Order: sequence, then structure tokens, then C-alpha cells
Amino acid sequence: MLNFDFYNPTHILFGKGRIADLNKVIPENAKVLLLYGGGSIKQNGVFDEVIAALGTRSVTEFTGIEPNPSYETLMQAVEVIKNGQIDFLLAVGGGSVIDGTKFIAAAALFEGGDPWAILEKRGSNITKALPFGSVLTLPATGSEMNAGAVVTRKSIKAKMAFSSPHCYPKFSILDPTKTYTLPVRQIGNGAVDAFVHVMEQYMTYPVNSPVQDRFAEGLLKTLIEEGPKALKNPEDYDVRANLMWCATMALNGLISAGVPQDWATHMIGHELTALHGIDHAQTLAIVLPSMLRVRKESKRAKLLQYAERIWDLRDGDEDTRIETAISRTQDFFEQMGVKTRLSDYALNASNIDPIVAALETHRMVALGEKRDVTLNISRQVLELSL
Amino acid sequence: MLNFDFYNPTHILFGKGRIADLNKVIPENAKVLLLYGGGSIKQNGVFDEVIAALGTRSVTEFTGIEPNPSYETLMQAVEVIKNGQIDFLLAVGGGSVIDGTKFIAAAALFEGGDPWAILEKRGSNITKALPFGSVLTLPATGSEMNAGAVVTRKSIKAKMAFSSPHCYPKFSILDPTKTYTLPVRQIGNGAVDAFVHVMEQYMTYPVNSPVQDRFAEGLLKTLIEEGPKALKNPEDYDVRANLMWCATMALNGLISAGVPQDWATHMIGHELTALHGIDHAQTLAIVLPSMLRVRKESKRAKLLQYAERIWDLRDGDEDTRIETAISRTQDFFEQMGVKTRLSDYALNASNIDPIVAALETHRMVALGEKRDVTLNISRQVLELSL
Repeated sequence: MLNFDFYNPTHILFGKGRIADLNKVIPENAKVLLLYGGGSIKQNGVFDEVIAALGTRSVTEFTGIEPNPSYETLMQAVEVIKNGQIDFLLAVGGGSVIDGTKFIAAAALFEGGDPWAILEKRGSNITKALPFGSVLTLPATGSEMNAGAVVTRKSIKAKMAFSSPHCYPKFSILDPTKTYTLPVRQIGNGAVDAFVHVMEQYMTYPVNSPVQDRFAEGLLKTLIEEGPKALKNPEDYDVRANLMWCATMALNGLISAGVPQDWATHMIGHELTALHGIDHAQTLAIVLPSMLRVRKESKRAKLLQYAERIWDLRDGDEDTRIETAISRTQDFFEQMGVKTRLSDYALNASNIDPIVAALETHRMVALGEKRDVTLNISRQVLELSL
Repeated sequence: MLNFDFYNPTHILFGKGRIADLNKVIPENAKVLLLYGGGSIKQNGVFDEVIAALGTRSVTEFTGIEPNPSYETLMQAVEVIKNGQIDFLLAVGGGSVIDGTKFIAAAALFEGGDPWAILEKRGSNITKALPFGSVLTLPATGSEMNAGAVVTRKSIKAKMAFSSPHCYPKFSILDPTKTYTLPVRQIGNGAVDAFVHVMEQYMTYPVNSPVQDRFAEGLLKTLIEEGPKALKNPEDYDVRANLMWCATMALNGLISAGVPQDWATHMIGHELTALHGIDHAQTLAIVLPSMLRVRKESKRAKLLQYAERIWDLRDGDEDTRIETAISRTQDFFEQMGVKTRLSDYALNASNIDPIVAALETHRMVALGEKRDVTLNISRQVLELSL
């Protein structure tokens, strides 16, 4: 096991009816900036419940945080904060709204000039942030219980990540019933996103970490079991609750503690989103299977463990077991309604050069747990995903 | 899944050489009270490393916190704090030292009269506590990453628990190499303690919580695999690291989130320690197997799941699988050097009445996840453990 730090102070309030507890976890005299995306929270009752729970607190609204939240939009919220009297941010939505709120919380108090510098330094220059909490409506990214975020700058087509210990939500409210009305596409994307988050932390090489491995495997198996049920029976409370808890546990620092991490799939995926607007989870579903095939040798031991423990593949030669496990993974993504080839998104071989060039521009030239995913390897992965 | 809150702000620093990081996590101008038990930390180098890391900070020592820390001893430390200028507590040791430090931290700032009231109200009357951290030397109780503690009042032979959100350690340092010199008995006790902690949160009835179940099962399997290796190869780093991480994860609120909990075994065990001075883990090893046998019907579904997933028992009739799983559990405790019968500790049928009377005195008359463990059931459990 590798040395590690684990620290995660976010207070999770989980279950039916928990939005009312906002009244307990936000200071009574808080001046709240309520941040959300489109209008779905006004249709599914979440907005009304949030407003009721906030009671007599001063509430300003900031709406229009888009999927893959943009620096341009988020800076408008920073202006609102600078002009008004705001001392608490409340994100209501999915990972994009929460990610955006993290950036806004840090940018509002940033003293190092243009807050774009936060992205350039990956958050290492954040020294404080406004306190914020979240009401999660989409189980997927895990942003509700971690200190990281991804922000896109439209003008330069760049999608960049940052994190800071100052950017943990003070609390996150997870009410599975609020996910009943989500579109099928978002449930499918969410399950795939969580699955690949686990894989980025699990599918590397063995370091004798049975607890972390078994926790990761428990999440993978649960996602495989519950994901299809969530599509079929949208109002099955336990299924939605299990999916939601998986997504949170997939990226809160727990399963990565003491083990190597990969994240090459994510880095290539970010370029696909930045250049072509493909949903984040869709990019992961495109990249991961080919990534595992191309890097089969360096991941062999964990791929065999994965084949056995997740897909029950014990017989036959190693390479067959590995290939079967990867195809089943790909089948699972397809079963969740997430297509797994570039051609499914109208991309072809001519699109690969610009993606590789973007990786180079963003210095993504030595990715993966062993830093051996060169631009050439990334190209092979993309070619295999055509 | 049941509704739940999860909150755990303790910063874990895990791995070889981490004691030096005390210098980063304790304020530079802190006036530290260093609390420990006997002299073992002076023999194994831990004390010297701690003192070196504390550098020029003011350090006062309080030594002699005993196993099953007593109110009488802990109140002496409270006096030291009131007389001296102390603003940070550092517990160096196992669960008893950390538990004791939690009580001291709360009692030093308690404004409700005699701090014994903290135990009488199970901590609900704690409104603040001195900040404290820990250096863990014995993987067992999980106290390093939770807000609970158990304190004994020798004068009335009572062992009582409390918890409070004010009593999380600010940090805990877990260096597996510092467990190499532990006596065999403490390693055996520690593994059994962690195992039974998991069982108290897992072995109840199904509530459709696959993530929590799989996390719990991952810990149980790892303890069964690594425990005996830890006895055999005391200086195998990974084995000690895995054991240590299991013990912390077993009782930090994670696997109990959203599921029912039992704890009847612990409550009966506490009386055995209070009346007869039997080690905590020994009491659990005596009580748990009989507890499972006596309550087989109400735990049937989870016992079958446990038999299959932990002990690979899939064939034969249900009752045989259940009994085999319980005997294997008992064998595991014995393999760890922890005896499982009252007679192994020189107790017999005549000792049962006083134990049941103590349970009644402490109002332990309706224990377990369904509150159906009456005094009569507790008596049956004890009789079966003779």
C-alpha cells in the first residue's frame, strides 16, 4: 500500500425528505446565492422545496450554469457576488452546477488577479473560498463530496481541472426521489461516469491493497446491477439510492487512498468534449475500452482480477478472459444507452489529429499511473475507438 | 436503504514515516498535552519521533492512561489542563488512550458540573471540546477516526459510552511500522475487535444496501486473510497496513450509513470487562458466536449471505450453512489467539446472574437492531457461551 492522506469533511444528508434540513445546515442569517442550471428544478419540485427550507434567509438567484460549466458564465456569478451581499453559496443541480460553484466560491475571494489563474495552477493558488453546500439532483460526478472541479473556457476550447482543500462542500443533500424525473440519457451517463471514476482508481497495478480493491469492486458490481434497473424502473427508491451512493463513493477520495491512479481516459475524454461537445460520460465510454485494450500488458494483473471478481471469468486463457471482461464492460455502457465508438458520434479518422494536438497543447503527453501514455499511445487508443 | 447522515472530518495521515508530519498538522504555537498509556512508546521509538516532530512547542506529559480508561485517571488529566496552559491534546497509543483523550477534551471545557454527566447523557450535553489529534499504535478500536469513546468508572464498576460531533480527532497518524513490536495478544485482540465492529453493523437484516454490504464484506474477508499473517510475520508492512486500515474503516461511520445496527454483543461484553476485567476483544469473541446462534431466526437472511460471501458456503441446507459460518467465525477468533468461551476465562454458570443484573442496572434491557434482545435473551447467550 502507498502512503496517503485522507481528508473529507463534507457532511452528507442522505434520503427522502432531506431538503427540509437545509434549514439546519445553512446559518440562519446567511445571505444565500442560489445557483442552478436550466429550469428542471422548477419542474420537479426541488426549487420549491429549497426555497421553503431557506425560510426568511436572503436569497439571490443565479441561473444558467451549463453542462461543462464555462469560465465565461461562472465569472458572471462572481460579479454578482462582488456587487451584492452574499456569504453562502448553494448549488442545486448535478456535477456541472456543483463544479461551477466551487470555482465561483474560490474566484470570489481570489487575490491573484484574473481567476483563470486558478485553472492554470490547478487550484494550488487557492487560499480561501466562500462556504457552499449542494443539493444534488443527478448522481454521476461525485462532485458533491470532493474538492475538485472541471471548468471549460469556451473562447479557447479548453477544459481544465482544479482542486483545493478549501473547496469541499460544507454539506450535500442527496435525496434519491429527486432523481426520478431525470431523462434516461442522464441516468445512463451518470452510471457510466461513476463506473469509469472507479476504474481510473482501480484498474492500474497491484500494490497489495485488498480493502481498496474490494471497495472499488463493490461499487463496480453495484453499478452493473443497479444501472439497468434504474433505467427500467425510474421510481424504485432503493435502486436510485444505491446508484446515488455509488456515484458519491466513486470519487470522494476513499477508493484512491493508498493506490496508484490512472485518469488517462478522462484526459482524452476532456478533449473530445472541448472540441466536439460530446457528453462527458459518452467520451469515457468511447475511450475506456480501447484504453484497456491498448494498455493490456501493463494492466494485466488487475485486468485478470477484474475479469474474475466482476465478470466471474475464471476459465480459459488469460487473453480471452481479459478481452471478454473488456467487451462486457463495453456492453454494459451500451446497455446504459451510452454509445462506445467515435463513429457513433459522427467522428472519423480525420478528427484524431486535432484531438492529439489538443492533448499536446495541454501538455497531456505522459498520462496514466506510470506516466507512459504518450501522445502516440493516445492516438492508438483513439484509432481503436473509431 | 435507510436515511442517514455521514460526517467525518478527521484527517488521516497514513504510512511509513508520517509521525514527522505532526509538525504540519499541529499549530506552531500550540501548548501540547501529550497523553499516553504505559511505557511501550518509549521502547519502540514512537515517543522519540513524536518529541522530535513537535520541535520547540511546549509539551506537558500525562502518562498512565490504562486499558479501559478510567474516569478517575482521566479526571487527573483534566486537572492538569485546568492548572496549566494547554490548548492542544495529542493522544499517542491505542484506542484506550484516544478514547480517554476524547473524554478529557470534552471534560476540560464542560460547563455542566461534574463531567461524569457526559457519560450519563452519552455525550449529548457536550457543546465544545479542546482540539486533539492522535498517533495510533494499535489497530483495533477505530477510535482514531470516530467521535465515540468508552470510559470506565472503577468505583461503581460501570463501563459507559459517549459520542459527540465535537470529539472527532483533528488528525490521526497511522504508521503501520509502529505496530511491529506489539504483543501477539494485542494483534489478535485488535483483529477480533475490528471484525466484531463490522459484524455489529452488517449482521442485522437486509435493507437493500449493496454498497454498504460489500464494503463490510470486504473488511471481513481482509481481516480473515490478513489477521493470521500479521501474527506469523510481524514485520510484513503490507499486512500490518491492511490490518490497520481495516480497523479504521470498520468504525468510522462508513459501513453503518443507511443500515440497521446491532451492538448487543458489545453491551454484554462491556459488563464482562467491567465485572471481570476481561479484555474487550475477548468479551466480543465470547459473546458474538452465541449471540448469532440464539438470534439465528431474526438474522437468517444476512447469516446466509455471510455464509456464502465470506465463507463460500453455498451447498447444503440453510441451518447447516449458518452453523458452519458461525463455527468458522469462532475458529477465526481462536486462530487469532482469542478464546471464545466463558470457561476459558475461569467463569461459570454462577457468574451469569451478576452479569444479567448489571445489564439491568445499566438499562440494557432491549438491545439489538430490533430492540428485542431482552435480559432473558442475554442470559441465553451467556449460557450458550459457558
